[in-house]
Amino acid sequence: MIRERVDTGHSRYEILIGTGLLGQTGQLLLELSVNRSSRHLIVTDEQVRAAGHLTPLLASLQAAGYEAELFVIPAGEASKRLELAERAFEFAYEAGLDRRSVVLALGGGVVGDFAGFLAATYMRGIPFVQLPTTLLAHDSAVGGKVAVNLSSAKNIIGAFHQPLAVIYDIDALSTLPLREMRSGYAEAIKHGIIRDAELFAWIEARTEQILANDPQVMAELLARSCRIKAEVVSADEREHGVRAILNFGHTIGHAVESLAGYGRLRHGEAIAIGMICAAELSVKMGLCTPDAAEAIASVVKAAGLPTQIPRDLDADELLSSIKRDKKATGGTLTFVLMRAIGKVEIVKDVPEKLVRDVIEDRRES
Amino acid sequence: MIRERVDTGHSRYEILIGTGLLGQTGQLLLELSVNRSSRHLIVTDEQVRAAGHLTPLLASLQAAGYEAELFVIPAGEASKRLELAERAFEFAYEAGLDRRSVVLALGGGVVGDFAGFLAATYMRGIPFVQLPTTLLAHDSAVGGKVAVNLSSAKNIIGAFHQPLAVIYDIDALSTLPLREMRSGYAEAIKHGIIRDAELFAWIEARTEQILANDPQVMAELLARSCRIKAEVVSADEREHGVRAILNFGHTIGHAVESLAGYGRLRHGEAIAIGMICAAELSVKMGLCTPDAAEAIASVVKAAGLPTQIPRDLDADELLSSIKRDKKATGGTLTFVLMRAIGKVEIVKDVPEKLVRDVIEDRRES
Ligand SMILES: NC(=O)c1ccc[n+]([C@@H]2O[C@H](COP(=O)([O-])OP(=O)(O)OC[C@H]3O[C@@H](n4cnc5c(N)ncnc54)[C@H](O)[C@@H]3O)[C@@H](O)[C@H]2O)c1
Ligand SMILES: NC(=O)c1ccc[n+]([C@@H]2O[C@H](COP(=O)([O-])OP(=O)(O)OC[C@H]3O[C@@H](n4cnc5c(N)ncnc54)[C@H](O)[C@@H]3O)[C@@H](O)[C@H]2O)c1
Ligand SMILES: [Zn+2]
Ligand SMILES: [Zn+2]
Repeated sequence: MIRERVDTGHSRYEILIGTGLLGQTGQLLLELSVNRSSRHLIVTDEQVRAAGHLTPLLASLQAAGYEAELFVIPAGEASKRLELAERAFEFAYEAGLDRRSVVLALGGGVVGDFAGFLAATYMRGIPFVQLPTTLLAHDSAVGGKVAVNLSSAKNIIGAFHQPLAVIYDIDALSTLPLREMRSGYAEAIKHGIIRDAELFAWIEARTEQILANDPQVMAELLARSCRIKAEVVSADEREHGVRAILNFGHTIGHAVESLAGYGRLRHGEAIAIGMICAAELSVKMGLCTPDAAEAIASVVKAAGLPTQIPRDLDADELLSSIKRDKKATGGTLTFVLMRAIGKVEIVKDVPEKLVRDVIEDRRES
Repeated sequence: MIRERVDTGHSRYEILIGTGLLGQTGQLLLELSVNRSSRHLIVTDEQVRAAGHLTPLLASLQAAGYEAELFVIPAGEASKRLELAERAFEFAYEAGLDRRSVVLALGGGVVGDFAGFLAATYMRGIPFVQLPTTLLAHDSAVGGKVAVNLSSAKNIIGAFHQPLAVIYDIDALSTLPLREMRSGYAEAIKHGIIRDAELFAWIEARTEQILANDPQVMAELLARSCRIKAEVVSADEREHGVRAILNFGHTIGHAVESLAGYGRLRHGEAIAIGMICAAELSVKMGLCTPDAAEAIASVVKAAGLPTQIPRDLDADELLSSIKRDKKATGGTLTFVLMRAIGKVEIVKDVPEKLVRDVIEDRRES
């Protein structure tokens, strides 16, 4: 088992990465002094349950003497809604959850964000534990951002609420569809680009093993990728400064994701396209050399991720979606741009015209 | 203008108390460096708007160069609902509120709790300013507890989110119905009981002037009462310890309030009854003398507040409601009890039998 520490100043927790961890969760909760007289709440989605990952978790909780209620949501982004959260709150309250209860989020980023939002606001905040089952969740489970969506925009209603622990059982990834694996792979590439050229090269050389879920390689990938996320979050828990570099590829990526219509592109697919665009924007701004941007496009392509903006997405609509993105404060266009692989910076006042050019170049012809 | 400071360690803000302050809000926001390029959101309720308090606020914001959107909710507890919050989120998002926007809560505890919840969770937290218009709001506007209700229980969904400032215009109280004045008066009595015998005596001697809204007396009352609240909150922002003393009178009070059916008793009316019960429980536990309990009953009575539990409320149902109150962790009965006026403490394992006796003694016969 690999352990990585996160320390934001306000809160401290560990990320545990290894095999067979779901079957040890009860024991781990005992070590975290989670009490056995309160009831707890497992949140998961239908697909994760069907894949069989609930079974070892339930067994281990029971063996350790924990009583847990179960709230299962439909798989997919549409579950990140206040209406469903209200049903979960009612359920938790009827089940007698109190302020010492813990929420256990078993699933990918959707379950983690949704369950984390419940924990952040139930009785003004109770602890929660992330039990990620997707590769992408190495990103979403670390850092304490939790949220649900508005029908018109993603992640508008949320909080910063750090987990009590992240327990990452690599075995769970064995049932993850390849497309989801690729989606998570994109965020790992991002972590290399923003802070660690060596990690980027390491990933580049191991695309196949990662997508084939080689346990040794996967453990190292998750540990290294989580470490970068943890470092950035520890330096800036509430996204007042450096944390914004985590949004590399996300400004155009989010616009592509939302305009395509949720469910069509996976988050990581949209981010893959967004990273290529951000790199090309960096070149146009004279910040980095074209070969750095090409290296990104090539690793994205090798992973089987999309490299182009779907043809039916309109440049004007993408631009106006970017402008109302929540990171655009006061109307100016701010981007995370790249100096070189491993080094990015926040650039304000990027000319709209250049953004449009990049988008047009990258649209499928 | 009187200024009181709150400093929780995580956040620092001022409570400003005086006349004509709504008309100075724009200026005060400028002093707080609230930016003028973002749009802001005023939340108020229909009755507060009808009473005319929006007018000076709007004028002063405009004079200071602020653009504010307006979201008006129906008056009353039923507005503290997630469904209405979702509509407010959609409205705020469509209006273009961003992370530098500020929510202005103009109203009593309902508006404060609701608008504070919006601010706590919109884009993972934006600042908000409390503009209290009820006497009770001296309690609800200080301390950062914000929440909405489940249909089955109050304040279950919420956060700790400290305001940027509390701007308390005493003039607003001139339109407040007497019954609401009394309701707020109960919380002021509570602040005397838990920390300040001298304040209790001062209040006792000024019941009439307070209920008649004498500006001088009111300013001093609000300042002293807010100071106590601020001290307790500063010592324990998240209610891990001493903050619980603020719940004096609230354990039985909440049960009475909810079983009576929301809307029938005002919050302060239920708390007035709850305080008398808590005092009598303290006597039965041998913690204080009967005359201290009698002094409380007498000041409550002099204010025209109820002193007895309505006859139709059943002792068994009250007891089971108390047991599922969120302060009951792990099933034991915990109460804030009184040693003397000005001195309370948290007592665990209060025998259910004594609680039942007190309830039965206090029911209308
Ligand atoms: N909070 C953050 O910091 C953060 C960061 C990035 C992304 N996110 C959020 O994360 C979400 C995307 O996360 P995701 O890609 O993990 O999505 P997801 O949770 O929807 O999982 C993808 C799909 O895989 C299924 N699945 C999950 N684990 C499985 C397994 N082990 N075996 C078989 N199927 C499995 C799920 O049921 C789902 O259908 C988005 O909502 C995004 O906004 C949040
Ligand atoms: N957050 C906290 O720490 C805290 C503490 C105590 C109470 N509360 C909450 O506060 C709420 C009760 O607060 P409240 O008693 O202020 O209730 P309220 O906000 O409902 O106000 C009472 C009534 O008076 C009206 N009103 C308000 N100001 C007026 C004015 N100046 N002129 C004329 N009418 C006016 C309102 O429209 C309402 O009908 C409850 O929801 C309770 O849970 C919160
Ligand atoms: Zn992402
Ligand atoms: Zn109260």
